[in-house]
Amino acid sequence: MGIVVQKYGGSSVSDAASIKRVAQRIVATKKAGHDVVVVVSAMGDTTDELLDLAHDVSPLPDGRELDMLLTAGERISMALLAMAIGNLGQQAQSFTGSQAGVITDSAHGRAKIIDVTPGRITRAIGDGAVAIVAGFQGVSQDSKDITTLGRGGSDTTAVALAAALEADVCEIYTDVDGIFTADPRIVPAARQIPVISYEETLEMAANGAKILHLRCVEYARRNDMPIHVRSSFSSKEGTWVVSAERMSDMLSATLTNEGDGEAPVMEQAIISGVAHDRSEAKITVVGVPDKVGEAARIFETLADAQINLDMIVQNVSAAATGLTDISFTLPRADGQTAMTSLARLKDEVGYAQLQYDDGVGKISLVGAGMRTNPGISAKFFKAIADAGVNIEMISTSEIRISVVVNEQQIDDAVSAAHRAFDLDAGEVEAVVYGGSGR
Amino acid sequence: MGIVVQKYGGSSVSDAASIKRVAQRIVATKKAGHDVVVVVSAMGDTTDELLDLAHDVSPLPDGRELDMLLTAGERISMALLAMAIGNLGQQAQSFTGSQAGVITDSAHGRAKIIDVTPGRITRAIGDGAVAIVAGFQGVSQDSKDITTLGRGGSDTTAVALAAALEADVCEIYTDVDGIFTADPRIVPAARQIPVISYEETLEMAANGAKILHLRCVEYARRNDMPIHVRSSFSSKEGTWVVSAERMSDMLSATLTNEGDGEAPVMEQAIISGVAHDRSEAKITVVGVPDKVGEAARIFETLADAQINLDMIVQNVSAAATGLTDISFTLPRADGQTAMTSLARLKDEVGYAQLQYDDGVGKISLVGAGMRTNPGISAKFFKAIADAGVNIEMISTSEIRISVVVNEQQIDDAVSAAHRAFDLDAGEVEAVVYGGSGR
Repeated sequence: MGIVVQKYGGSSVSDAASIKRVAQRIVATKKAGHDVVVVVSAMGDTTDELLDLAHDVSPLPDGRELDMLLTAGERISMALLAMAIGNLGQQAQSFTGSQAGVITDSAHGRAKIIDVTPGRITRAIGDGAVAIVAGFQGVSQDSKDITTLGRGGSDTTAVALAAALEADVCEIYTDVDGIFTADPRIVPAARQIPVISYEETLEMAANGAKILHLRCVEYARRNDMPIHVRSSFSSKEGTWVVSAERMSDMLSATLTNEGDGEAPVMEQAIISGVAHDRSEAKITVVGVPDKVGEAARIFETLADAQINLDMIVQNVSAAATGLTDISFTLPRADGQTAMTSLARLKDEVGYAQLQYDDGVGKISLVGAGMRTNPGISAKFFKAIADAGVNIEMISTSEIRISVVVNEQQIDDAVSAAHRAFDLDAGEVEAVVYGGSGR
Repeated sequence: MGIVVQKYGGSSVSDAASIKRVAQRIVATKKAGHDVVVVVSAMGDTTDELLDLAHDVSPLPDGRELDMLLTAGERISMALLAMAIGNLGQQAQSFTGSQAGVITDSAHGRAKIIDVTPGRITRAIGDGAVAIVAGFQGVSQDSKDITTLGRGGSDTTAVALAAALEADVCEIYTDVDGIFTADPRIVPAARQIPVISYEETLEMAANGAKILHLRCVEYARRNDMPIHVRSSFSSKEGTWVVSAERMSDMLSATLTNEGDGEAPVMEQAIISGVAHDRSEAKITVVGVPDKVGEAARIFETLADAQINLDMIVQNVSAAATGLTDISFTLPRADGQTAMTSLARLKDEVGYAQLQYDDGVGKISLVGAGMRTNPGISAKFFKAIADAGVNIEMISTSEIRISVVVNEQQIDDAVSAAHRAFDLDAGEVEAVVYGGSGR
């Protein structure tokens, strides 16, 4: 059998007891005949505690030194995990990001992986050992300094290593059973998704679903590395994140088995799920002269301020006035900066006023099936309207429709959309992908 | 001006406040025109806390993984220290043992330094930065695994780096003012020694003085690297540990200045100090047949059990019986192992019985001056006898006399010896080295 890469997050290794539990799972995988490479995050709150220490000695710690500090966290968890595995009679060796060959650029705190040269890992598993690798960290190509990958870093390490090792699968262990059709705290009837494409997962992640980070999914997509998101507290199958091609194969295999009387659990729904996001704010620039270049000035200014915009809507200008309104959403954390930058433009652009609203939320319907199923948008908007929720902005991609609504009404809107598309557990009208859809 | 290597122990960097204080001292040294390389230990109790974690996951943690775990400690302190220095406007970069070029053998937990290749450190100080290096750790030459140097490791790192960088001095910062003529907790009148030779320091360290570790002093002696032991809480001169030659030069320089009316603080006493050790036990093998090879069998057995003996005394055999007694001291921690090993030899060697005593202590009088001053032993024994203390064993080197006494009487014996050789503060009869001695 081939190589399995398993990634365990901080909550899975928060204390000695949970480290021992994870060790047992790893040894079981090894005993089942796989070569096992494990990527591990820092224990529980270690990273936050180290950050607190850093800010105690310096209000603005140097990036290189902050990375040196934070990487101590995985060093502790990976060594403890290796010891716990050793205590079960299975050889295990831990490796820092640098030792594992995770080569990055020099952007401290948000380094990008340039290359993975896992020679030591290959040797370790060749010797029959389990290799434990520190997530979230690497070494810069130019200066050989220790770097960290930023948010979602350990997941990205796991996928990158899996790709470099040509592993069969990258298993991401977490404290839930997999990816759900909606946040179960909002929609108790939300169901676990058995299989989903990279593209749909990217849309879910980019629009507020917290389960996998964008970078990790993008890395997996580029390298066609199957991800299996599953719970570290059970042995249930989780959610497979794979290419559309592999997804078709998996579905065909399941359908072929249908004659056995088993339920066709792997059928592809038109809609994968409903994501939501409460982290954005909306800014409207009212009364912009509808001349060539005015909108461009506004967006240049925001780009110069390093602000990533999400949805952008420009209304058709009223013929009588020659003025238009431009609305966009952005991370709330950047709201103050954006407003200050725009205020400076007032005389130059000659707009009437700025409106700022951080009481908004975004709901996104995601599904590859909407490519071949007209009428999805209409059904989505009607469901939201029927729930008494007003839509403030709309944006779409090929496999996603997003709307901005009042933040207070997000839960109602998510529940309504989830129900309208028959995603609630026990209400599934499974539609075979590319089949009965119209 | 040249390179200064400064080493700060765990108690000097136990929290954010003390790290900031150390940072100020380092910046002051840098501003005085020196290139500064700092070696730092893990913060306060970090190492013990990590050891506790290790034993929570495994009763017998793997050596390689234990080293990986423990080295997280210095990673934290060194990064924080670099940040604190940066916050004072001075550039600083931290380096792991591996990055600093500390190459060791593969003996995890007690690795020996084979080579130091501090290219990155040289570049960093060349760029005007303060280089902060993790103490206690290195990387193995063969397997490129992370290693730790064991007890006294950070001091050894500092001296090894100082030697490789051809530094002017290796400053070892601690929580006392320097090396004292005796433990001030036992002898309140103990005085700080201004200058002492490597050889005397080695005898002090080997016989219970806790201030510098044997390995570090031995490394300094081999490389003729001056060590300055001083307090991180004051700017007072501490104790210089140097070669006998350099010591003569320093004393001459002081004596030359005598005409200025300054007190000749640097005069060499016959006796440097009185060390004591409560960590040993005494074993006596009673009634050993006085034949060729019997004693050898006993010591071979103990060597096979990896036990390091300290003092060994064999009485002349009584002519009537042809039997002799062999006594030796050893670390108390090895007492049980030694007794078990010896018990197995009883029939083979045919001794009468074993006696074990862990209520003993050792007192050592150390001083290069005793080479040229007869009568030192007699004066030492008389002082101890006058204090009502019985001497159980005696051993000597060229510059040391050690006696074993009842542990309860150590304090009395140390005080008596200290007073007898005029070491108490205010009672100094300074004797110039090689001068008035007879």
